[in-house]
Amino acid sequence: MKKSIGAKALIVPTPVWVVGTYDHEGKPNVMTAAWGGICCSKPPCVAIAVQKIRYTYNNLVERNAFTVSVPSVLHAKEADYFGIASGKTTDKFATTGLTPSKSNMVDAPYVEEFPLALECNLIHTLELGLHTLFIGEVLDIKADEDVLGEKGLPDMNKFKPFTYNPEIRTYYAVGEYLGKAFSIGKELS
Amino acid sequence: MKKSIGAKALIVPTPVWVVGTYDHEGKPNVMTAAWGGICCSKPPCVAIAVQKIRYTYNNLVERNAFTVSVPSVLHAKEADYFGIASGKTTDKFATTGLTPSKSNMVDAPYVEEFPLALECNLIHTLELGLHTLFIGEVLDIKADEDVLGEKGLPDMNKFKPFTYNPEIRTYYAVGEYLGKAFSIGKELS
Repeated sequence: MKKSIGAKALIVPTPVWVVGTYDHEGKPNVMTAAWGGICCSKPPCVAIAVQKIRYTYNNLVERNAFTVSVPSVLHAKEADYFGIASGKTTDKFATTGLTPSKSNMVDAPYVEEFPLALECNLIHTLELGLHTLFIGEVLDIKADEDVLGEKGLPDMNKFKPFTYNPEIRTYYAVGEYLGKAFSIGKELS
Repeated sequence: MKKSIGAKALIVPTPVWVVGTYDHEGKPNVMTAAWGGICCSKPPCVAIAVQKIRYTYNNLVERNAFTVSVPSVLHAKEADYFGIASGKTTDKFATTGLTPSKSNMVDAPYVEEFPLALECNLIHTLELGLHTLFIGEVLDIKADEDVLGEKGLPDMNKFKPFTYNPEIRTYYAVGEYLGKAFSIGKELS
């Protein structure tokens, strides 16, 4: 018998991703987002939810492009800061000393020091309420070679991404290996 | 300098969630989804991406409701199985011995043995390509009391949810505590 805990924007785990955009003057900005996810395999698409009050919102609408940079635990403080400060009043790259790299596929910057960056063109915008959902088609992914393993793909033990627990507002690393997908459940069939 | 790894539906971490629906005969079904995320805070909404070939697809379209049950590492095998088998030919609850509980808020079942369940009414459907994005408004969340901690909210150490690494197709537990959000980054401002 479960307990009702109400209608909340709460589920676990949620990711910790950093949305990169340029503003109207070409200043690179980044905003941390835990609301989002992959939403299509072909074409590959990722969705991120952004409030209208965010500096990133107008950048997305004006530039029709964004990146999603994925931090490792080594940059948890910087990722948290990117969710606290506003690009309206701050150059978040300058403050943290991190480097904005220009995507070669879309009109948006990514965080050079984070291991993975998705370069996305905005293809859909959906108004939902407090948040607007921005859906981008992934045109390319850039990765640091030292986080790649088997088949040239990201290896979680090398990468060390992390997750967010909403409402309680805490971060947790991705940890122990549990097994292969589309495999460990076969014994039940 | 980063390396291009191509345009893929790849980002880390992605969640491991189980979408619950009833079919046209009222048979409960579950499907594992790693493509999705929270997409609005007010009203609270969650998005999940489903392929047209899935048994869940028609259930969603016909019933306009779904649940999202979140497994812990204790049920990683069952969650994996729910992504392998099809409700067209199998009663996945019967095969695994898990229990379908009827949501009291929406016309969909959740997995009683999983610690958390979101009860959602379908409010938007967006065709993207191979996947269709289904957006549900969260009307209530049901939780097992033994995974709740501070403020009656899910405690990651008690819950032990897990994540999926796309392409390489592996599961990893949520692990080490890293710190408080909207807090650990303040020292950089």
